[in-house]
Amino acid sequence: MSVTAPKGFVANGVACGIKPGGRPDLSLVATADARPVAAAAVFTTNLATAAPVQVSRRHLAVTGGRAAAVVLNSGNANAATGSVGLAASERMCALVAESLGCRPDEVLVCSTGLIGIPLPMAPIEGGVPVLVAGRAADGGTRAAEAILTTDTCRKEVLVPGDGWTVAGMAKGAAMLDPNMATMLAVLTTDADVDPAVLRDELAAAVAASFNRITVDGATSTNDTVIILASGAAGAADPTAFRTALHEACAGLALQMVADAEGATKLVRVQVAGARSDAEAAAAARKVASSLLVKCSLYGKDPYWGRVVSELGSAGVGFDPDLVSVAYGGVEVCREGVACEHDSAALDALMERREIVLAADLGLGNGSAEIVSADLTHAYVDENMTTS
Amino acid sequence: MSVTAPKGFVANGVACGIKPGGRPDLSLVATADARPVAAAAVFTTNLATAAPVQVSRRHLAVTGGRAAAVVLNSGNANAATGSVGLAASERMCALVAESLGCRPDEVLVCSTGLIGIPLPMAPIEGGVPVLVAGRAADGGTRAAEAILTTDTCRKEVLVPGDGWTVAGMAKGAAMLDPNMATMLAVLTTDADVDPAVLRDELAAAVAASFNRITVDGATSTNDTVIILASGAAGAADPTAFRTALHEACAGLALQMVADAEGATKLVRVQVAGARSDAEAAAAARKVASSLLVKCSLYGKDPYWGRVVSELGSAGVGFDPDLVSVAYGGVEVCREGVACEHDSAALDALMERREIVLAADLGLGNGSAEIVSADLTHAYVDENMTTS
Repeated sequence: MSVTAPKGFVANGVACGIKPGGRPDLSLVATADARPVAAAAVFTTNLATAAPVQVSRRHLAVTGGRAAAVVLNSGNANAATGSVGLAASERMCALVAESLGCRPDEVLVCSTGLIGIPLPMAPIEGGVPVLVAGRAADGGTRAAEAILTTDTCRKEVLVPGDGWTVAGMAKGAAMLDPNMATMLAVLTTDADVDPAVLRDELAAAVAASFNRITVDGATSTNDTVIILASGAAGAADPTAFRTALHEACAGLALQMVADAEGATKLVRVQVAGARSDAEAAAAARKVASSLLVKCSLYGKDPYWGRVVSELGSAGVGFDPDLVSVAYGGVEVCREGVACEHDSAALDALMERREIVLAADLGLGNGSAEIVSADLTHAYVDENMTTS
Repeated sequence: MSVTAPKGFVANGVACGIKPGGRPDLSLVATADARPVAAAAVFTTNLATAAPVQVSRRHLAVTGGRAAAVVLNSGNANAATGSVGLAASERMCALVAESLGCRPDEVLVCSTGLIGIPLPMAPIEGGVPVLVAGRAADGGTRAAEAILTTDTCRKEVLVPGDGWTVAGMAKGAAMLDPNMATMLAVLTTDADVDPAVLRDELAAAVAASFNRITVDGATSTNDTVIILASGAAGAADPTAFRTALHEACAGLALQMVADAEGATKLVRVQVAGARSDAEAAAAARKVASSLLVKCSLYGKDPYWGRVVSELGSAGVGFDPDLVSVAYGGVEVCREGVACEHDSAALDALMERREIVLAADLGLGNGSAEIVSADLTHAYVDENMTTS
């Protein structure tokens, strides 16, 4: 289970000294022969765009959607760092290109960590040659390790296709890390996919996966999802590839929420009966983002009144006399008012780590799911200070 | 300092048995002669509108903006209670009308407490006659006491005018109470103001006060602000009255944030340099609502990177190279990057209970302030369970 599972990729992760304590902080995913392959990316919509996002976006534009490598650092987001930050991201790409033997604009770059602090270049100048020299077909785990910040575990995924494979690694969920600002994901495949197709398929997969999770509603300065397609396994059936890519993105997204800061619950907020899928998604996102609903879930309290209140203020079609709410299939509110239910069964359900919180608006056929986490003492602890 | 300070009003508060432990839970503000006077209200925009909001709205429409009394209960929101809930709110008004000697539709009603639980009518049937019988010109404090839920103190305001006065009482901030859903405020004045003018002035004052605070972003099912104008002091200068009403609303709003659940900080988020006042307000609200910014403030950590990130994703005009951020006047970010500052002075500022967090977008003349609180362990504690 590694980004190097698809044919044609190597990877590595090292500790170069950005993070204290000798923890891994520099990561590489590259093509085995250092030649550029089809590449696509989805970047944050935050206008306070970090330097690496600006540089990667420019490189993909210059090459027309091709890349030979992705270099990533953790421990510093290189965001809100101005022109010095841009030069630092370009330098990271140039260093990789020099060691790997490709053009600088064939390298994409990601950073994750503290915002507003200049990226320390000495560790990177010294670290990149070592990182590139140590790249290997079995280096995927090291690469996945070196991008973590407050994550408690690696996030990797592997989806086999018909002779080809989609794999990926990721870190963080939304503003998961207290010191920074990022979710990053790098996917690889050996399927042969045209860059333009790859871009559209990645955008669709991200919309249905990473964009359907929320931890704290923060859209970071550095969010990036990149895919490289080596083509080493030849053409893939388009539908099968689309399905595999969705599955890979969804797998990484779920791992992010499951490892969200301080979370004790993974909550699937499902809204049905909306006037449209878009309205269902907006309503589900409102409930999934509610501090009060998240606190209730932490307290194992099926307080559906808060759910109804969030649905009523979600800016979507809503009739208080038609709404129903259920936890884990146990209906607690029907036609807008409390209904009889098995309290013992409900209490048992609320003890589970994964909870389905379902609401039906009774207005139409729109439905959507947003996956979220609870709000806990540990979340506050992790985000109180950056030190 | 009481809602009965303006001439022509009486009030009372009693414990009728909705709340456990004999705590006050039934409150009245009425005209001294039980005759209807000019009245106006602003209600929640939540579509899951509680029964008392629906009933009060209907009564004001029927009377063309006149009321003789407001009855309020705490301990139960009478929200998500269907037609039974509507009948309960109407019954509360009828009971008051019978004891007071006015028409039922001349009574307005508010409730605050748990959502989704039928309002217990026996305590109210028994309590209202006692409540009305005990009304007095010195009953304002009792009235202000009986509307509280998790509030730790009464919220009252008194703004003297030229021969007339504006006074008010309130409870809660947004979804302040763990068990429920409400901010309520009742204002009184002895100025003689036409109902239509009163409605417009109240709407403007609410927009600039109660709608400029946020604790957890929840728009409750029961939010209500009501004003009664007895006219006993004669006509008021329109501009002076407007100013006094704004001041009264702002005073109550600030008391709400200062007493927000578990809060250790009152934070004035000020955004200037936006393309418009509306964009400034949207940006300030995004920062003020950010879990990460709120956690940082709790931790006394001036982590401006999170502020810039929220500004960049607020959906307003933003240029990362122009933004500046200051805490208590100490600038920490200039033109989008960290700047030299007096760290000792900054550390001392972060210890204060009230903090001004100011951002300048450098794009125009739009400015706005949103007042917020920090996110603390105590907030999570108070909202984990309803018991």
